[in-house]
Parts: sequence; C-alpha cells; structure tokens
Amino acid sequence: MDSRTIVELCKQHTMWSWSKSGPLQPLAFERAEGVYLYTPEGKRYLDFNSQLMSVNIGHSHPKVLARMKEAIDGHMLFAAPSAATPVRARLGKRLAELVPGDINSFFFTLGGAEANENAIKAARLYTGRHKILSRYRSYHGATHAAMQMTGDPRRWANEPGASGFIRVMDPIPYDFSFGTTDAERTANHLRYLEEVIQYEGPHTIAAMFVETVIGTNGIQPPPAGWLPGLRALLDKYGILLVCDEVMCGFGRTGKLFAFEHFGAQPDILTMAKGLTSSYVPLGAMGVTDKIAAHFRDNVFWGGLTYNAHPFCLAVAEAVLDVMLEEDMVGNAARMQHVMLAEMAALKARHPSVRDFRAIGLFGAIELQKDRQGTRMAPYNGSHPAIDRMMAFFKQEGLFTISHWWTLMCNPPLSITEAELREGFAVIDRGLAITDEAVEG
Amino acid sequence: MDSRTIVELCKQHTMWSWSKSGPLQPLAFERAEGVYLYTPEGKRYLDFNSQLMSVNIGHSHPKVLARMKEAIDGHMLFAAPSAATPVRARLGKRLAELVPGDINSFFFTLGGAEANENAIKAARLYTGRHKILSRYRSYHGATHAAMQMTGDPRRWANEPGASGFIRVMDPIPYDFSFGTTDAERTANHLRYLEEVIQYEGPHTIAAMFVETVIGTNGIQPPPAGWLPGLRALLDKYGILLVCDEVMCGFGRTGKLFAFEHFGAQPDILTMAKGLTSSYVPLGAMGVTDKIAAHFRDNVFWGGLTYNAHPFCLAVAEAVLDVMLEEDMVGNAARMQHVMLAEMAALKARHPSVRDFRAIGLFGAIELQKDRQGTRMAPYNGSHPAIDRMMAFFKQEGLFTISHWWTLMCNPPLSITEAELREGFAVIDRGLAITDEAVEG
Ligand SMILES: Cc1ncc(COP(=O)(O)O)c(C=O)c1O
Ligand SMILES: Cc1ncc(COP(=O)(O)O)c(C=O)c1O
Repeated sequence: MDSRTIVELCKQHTMWSWSKSGPLQPLAFERAEGVYLYTPEGKRYLDFNSQLMSVNIGHSHPKVLARMKEAIDGHMLFAAPSAATPVRARLGKRLAELVPGDINSFFFTLGGAEANENAIKAARLYTGRHKILSRYRSYHGATHAAMQMTGDPRRWANEPGASGFIRVMDPIPYDFSFGTTDAERTANHLRYLEEVIQYEGPHTIAAMFVETVIGTNGIQPPPAGWLPGLRALLDKYGILLVCDEVMCGFGRTGKLFAFEHFGAQPDILTMAKGLTSSYVPLGAMGVTDKIAAHFRDNVFWGGLTYNAHPFCLAVAEAVLDVMLEEDMVGNAARMQHVMLAEMAALKARHPSVRDFRAIGLFGAIELQKDRQGTRMAPYNGSHPAIDRMMAFFKQEGLFTISHWWTLMCNPPLSITEAELREGFAVIDRGLAITDEAVEG
Repeated sequence: MDSRTIVELCKQHTMWSWSKSGPLQPLAFERAEGVYLYTPEGKRYLDFNSQLMSVNIGHSHPKVLARMKEAIDGHMLFAAPSAATPVRARLGKRLAELVPGDINSFFFTLGGAEANENAIKAARLYTGRHKILSRYRSYHGATHAAMQMTGDPRRWANEPGASGFIRVMDPIPYDFSFGTTDAERTANHLRYLEEVIQYEGPHTIAAMFVETVIGTNGIQPPPAGWLPGLRALLDKYGILLVCDEVMCGFGRTGKLFAFEHFGAQPDILTMAKGLTSSYVPLGAMGVTDKIAAHFRDNVFWGGLTYNAHPFCLAVAEAVLDVMLEEDMVGNAARMQHVMLAEMAALKARHPSVRDFRAIGLFGAIELQKDRQGTRMAPYNGSHPAIDRMMAFFKQEGLFTISHWWTLMCNPPLSITEAELREGFAVIDRGLAITDEAVEG
C-alpha cells in the first residue's frame, strides 16, 4: 500500500486520539530501524521523540527481535494472571534488583495509565485514606482516575471527575514563582504544600503522585533539595510518595530511574514506555516491602485480564538486557552534554529560543515571541509560526512533536553523537521560521 | 526453573490481582498448545476457561505464531498513535467489514477496561450528556470509570467513585424477578428502566452499557425481545447503546458478535480478549458512522501511548484470519449442543447442579446446597465444598474457575467434541464432592 491509501483507510476506519480527525494529515510509516522511520515510499525520518518518548532502545533492535521470536517458539504467550510463569518469576526478580531501595514487588499492567490507576488503589487500600495529591504540570494517563490526577488541560473534557483528587502547584509553575533560587523555590513550595495538606486534612490523604521529572508539560526536573524535602514532608503525615516514571524512567534521564538523581526514594514507582521500549505494551507498579506485605494479608482490589502477560514480560526482559548490555543509560548521560551544547548554540543564534533544558536525552526547547521572554504560544494554545516550523521538520525528515511553545528533543537512548547533531542541524534551520515571528 | 521456584519467586516479587497473596498457591505454566497447558514438570491441564475467557482460538496456534514472526521481520513494531500504518489501515477496514451494520470506525486500546473508558468518553462527548447507565450483573473493567459502571462487588473497594454512574437491575437479576416468562421479564424490566430514566432525567443520560451476554456474573443471555426493546427505549430518549463484547465477542457465543443473536445494533461496540485471543494485548471500541463523523469536526479527548499499536494490530489480524479460516465460530455453535447435552446429563445425575446455561462455548453450571434450589454459596461468597471441588479439578488436570456458586465452562473455540467431553468427564467426577454437601 502507498502512503496515500494507508492514510485514507486509517482516516476512514480508525479514530484518532486528542484531535478532530478531519484535518489530520498523518504520516504513514512502514518500517523503523534504530533512530529512523521509513514511509512506504522510502522517505526517511529521524525519530527525535522516540515516538512518544517511549522507544528508548531504538527501533527494531535485532537482539530484541530475535528474543521475541524465541519467546514465540517457547509457546507460552499467555497465562491467566492467577498463574505463575517462569518469565514472571525472572522479570519480578530482575526489577527488584534494578530498582534501588526496598521496592521489590511489582504489579504488571498494560500502559502507564493503568499502572497509575493501580497505584491509586494500592495507596488507598494500604493507607485507608482516600485523597490523592498531584500537580498541575503533570500528565498521568487518560483513564478516569489517572486523568483526574492529570494537571494538564486534557483533563477538562473529562470532568466532572471523581472526588478526592487535589491538584496543587508545582515548585516551578509556568508563571507564578516560588522564588529565584532553587533553595527558595524548594522551601517556599514545601511550605505552601504543607499548608494545603493541613487544609485538606493530612489523615484523609493517601498519596502524592509526582512525575519525578515532568515530561509532556515541559521536561522539568525539580529544584535541588525538593524531592528529599517532599519525602520528609509526606513522611511527617504518613502520606505515600508515588513517583510516576512512565516517561522519565528506564534511562531517559541518564540514570535508570530518574529518582536516583535526587536523593529520595518513593513508596510506589510506576513505569511503562521504556520498560518494553514500546515493542509490546507493558506497564508496572513497584511497591516497597511494607506495602507488598500488606497485600499478603489484605486483598488487592485491582486486576486486568492482561496482568503479567507472559509474552510482554519476555519482551521487557529482552529490552532491559539490551539497554544494560549496550550501556544506553550511560549513552544518554554522555549525550546530554552534546544536546545541551547544541541547544546553547541554538539559543545564541536564534532570537525565538526562550530557554532550553535537558537531563539525559530528555530535552526541550522553549520558544518566545519577543526578546522579553513572552512565550510564543499561550497555555494550551498554538502559534502559526510553530505550526510552520513543524511542517518544515516533516518535510525535512525530522520526526518530533511540539507542546504549545515547547519543542521536544527526546531521541532513542541509542542515538550516536552524529545522529544527534544531524537532528539539531534540522532544528537550526527550522528555527529560522520561528525567528521571523519574533517581534521587535 | 521448577514449579516450586517459579511460584516462590512470583510470590516474592510480583503482586496478585483480586486477592490477598499470602495464601495463594498458583499453578506454574511453562507452555501451552491448543486446549492444553503444561507445567514445567510436564503435567497437562485442559484449559476449560480459555484462561480468562480470552484465548478464543486456543493456545500457540502455529499459523498465528508464524505470522507474529513475519510481523517482527517487517520491522514495524511500534509507531506513535499520530501515524498511519499499513496494518492500522487493513485492520480498521477488516473490522468495518466484520462488524454488522454501520459500525465502521475503530479506536484501538489495550485491554477491555480502556475500551470501555474510551466508550464513556465518546458517548459523553457525542451526546453532550454526562450520566452513564449500567447493570448490577456486570463487569466492565478495573480502571476507575469502568469500575464505576461495574455492578459486581469488586466495585465496593473502589468507592467512593465518580459521579454520574447509575446502576440498574438486570432483566434477570439473581433473586428478584421481573416475571416468569421472557415476555413478562422483557416488558416489566423495560417499564422499570424507563421509569428510572425518567427519574434521572433522560436529557442527562449519555449511554447505557450492557454486556450483550453477561459474562463473569453468570453467563446470562438477555430474555427474548429485550435487546430490541432496549434499543427502542434508548432511541426514544437519544441515549446511546453500548454493547460490551469484551468477553462475549469474537465467536464466544457461536456468532462473531453476540448482538447478532438478538436483533439489535449498538451505537458503540467494545471488545478485547478474543480480538487477539490474548496472544498480545489489544482492545477496541467501534463506533457508528454518525459518531465517527462527529469526531471529524470535534476533538476526541482520549488517547493512550499504545493506541493502534502496530504489532498488536498485526497479531489481531492473524488471529481473525485463523478464527474465520478454521470456522471456529461455527465450531462454537456446533459444540454448544454437545455442551448443553453434557450439562443436562450432569443435572440429571447430580443433586448439587441447580441450573446450567450455554450459548456457543460460553457456559456455566450453577450449584445448589439443597434440592429447593438454594444457591450453594451466597452472593459474593464461597462454600467449602466448591473449594474442594476446585482443588479436585486442579489435581485432575482441569483448568477452570468458579464464581461464587457457579462453575465456568468456556474452553477455546477450537475445542473438539472429544476434548469437550474429556472436560465434562472430570466435572462429572468433581460434582460428587459438591453432591455430598447437598442437604436432605
Ligand atoms: C508521566 C506519564 N504518566 C502516565 C502516562 C500514561 O501512559 P499510557 O499512555 O501508556 O497510558 C504517560 C503517557 O504519556 C506519561 O507521560
Ligand atoms: C465484559 C467485560 N468487559 C470488560 C472487561 C475488562 O477487560 P480487561 O480486563 O482487559 O481490562 C472484562 C474483563 O474480564 C469483561 O469481561
């Protein structure tokens, strides 16, 4: 099938997420290898967003493909969640070894939303409390409870929601400021948060969910000292800390788990995306020994048909082996410096660059519409120059996404320095388009 | 690894759904083929529940395994939901052809819960109304909104829930009766339902969700005339009809979709399980042309990273090919008669058999504790004799599940008459155990 037929049939017979489908002009991909995607006509795209920040090890890794075939030949594709399987035993043990601290028991889901849904259940059942705290700069998934925790505006169309979900400001909101230094931001934000906790009633709050490094809503690590401070604050009130590492986990930040950067341990860790690098769907929630022990004597009121799906677990095992054997986490840490240097050079050259950030291969460039730092697009909005820049990238064979005034730079962790620079060279040319829109 | 090690590691490092894990003694499976499961020690189990009523085509079908390997060699395991892919085009078109009527557009999810979550979103956005009706004898999944629609007691631990979910009686509840004939039950139930709709405000109700044939809560088809009556009633008030065929779809009832038995078309159809026969996870929601057209001009506010996952779609395609080529749907219809004959014979021989039902290979045997029809276990309860019978099945190599006072008989649709009779022979012996518990 050619691109045109593929696109026509897909538009005719499938629905599209987060959009009105009429005006969509999707690309058709037929094949993907390493950091490249190919259309049926053979046009090549550099994947500068690992699709949805999820194909961490790169596309079609030959070792993983071979292991997938072995798993198929093993004839244990599926077993009911009530059964034990060799791969469930192995991957459970493996994750217990890989996740630092006393997180040693895992509940396997499909995507990240379901990992978070189950983390809500676990936190409520364990604490006997109902309320869940989360932050406005967050995305936790689209199922009902995950969406109630989500701060970003995709929540609006899914309201009125469930009761008991309390959303608070981040230590680094978009405009409001908790201070000019990390020390100020951390101290002021935690003071603010403690006051909210008082008003809500500490004994009613089961958990606080945080993306350890904020993903979709701006690739934003917390200010120094914040995560340990949060840990101590929540401990004071017996509130669990849940780190959502669906996007920032599995090497994306240059460490296997993002919380390893910040010196604090969560009670519950949620993950998906990088865990299988999207080769097949899989999510998971990891809990501490204390919480695991609770559910030895108390019913865990959660489940799904595809809990601990053996074939998906086998793929995760293969993906983790490759990620570690080829030191892709180390590569992400090394490439961070290349990315930051490229971004700094772009900022020096392009008046439309407002700011940039990267931790590991988790990067973003913010765009401005004047030299005073006014964001190029408003909250939840867009700007025609950004749309034109995105069209240029499409034409030039660079696959990535933008988010309001932010351009995402999240290639596979397997990317080489040359490939990374190749991407930034296209961005360099594209920014000429947004530069033109800068006023004054 | 031997069974003992597998079980120990799984218990130590993974969490278990719907249970306190301490007392669990899971079986370890290492391999599955056709209707059989094998432990590492080579003990064979006849799969009399298709795992979770989900492995419709049977385990490790060689044609599907071969197609999975081909899909792997095709190097298009994953593409972002924003992309078009050849398999998305093909499977969308295929499903449009297979689903009767004007359901021609599909939104792909992972499991069934997410299919239902997205159906709630679609119904609300399309109608501009908020409330959702569902029935007490239902299970719609474990994510928050799907769980609020769920009637069965697994909802309790997940409350308080979201607002706007109204649960009503079924036309065939457990004890209360809407009449003694199908005509009475249908007429009385629809009268009851219309009155509830009046009280709730018809203009506030977006959709009613029904399992076309109730699954987990008792394998119960609707009374004659009920589904067309419901269709007309909902049409009168502009309320959408959503058929949840996650369990009863894809041949389970002896037709490809269960609603084909009953002479009425849903507006939205949700599916999962049989769609891929669990080889990999996949769910979907199908919508009518009218609803699809709405989302051409209006944003569909739903999504997930693994929406339209190419590899999962490719497996669904292969599974559907095999299911249809080998006429497994026809086989399910033919085997229904064998199953019903076996069940009738069991009822004649065993005083603990209260009732039985089967539609296609979707069957259940109800157990009683006296000759007056008192159910052997209470609602949401168990009975030691049933536990002993289930232990006997485990020992004798029959894999199935019980639900309160009901024994499930849902083998793969590929089962032969001989294999089916083999299963019932074990059940025949097992029922001696529950017979002993019958009073008087
Ligand atoms: C931080 C975070 N949590 C949860 C999710 C939801 O995961 P999924 O789309 O697999 O349900 C996402 C998805 O982007 C995410 O970025
Ligand atoms: C009728 C029905 N709907 C929805 C679901 C939920 O599907 P899943 O477990 O894949 O989320 C199930 C699961 O058993 C079901 O039987």
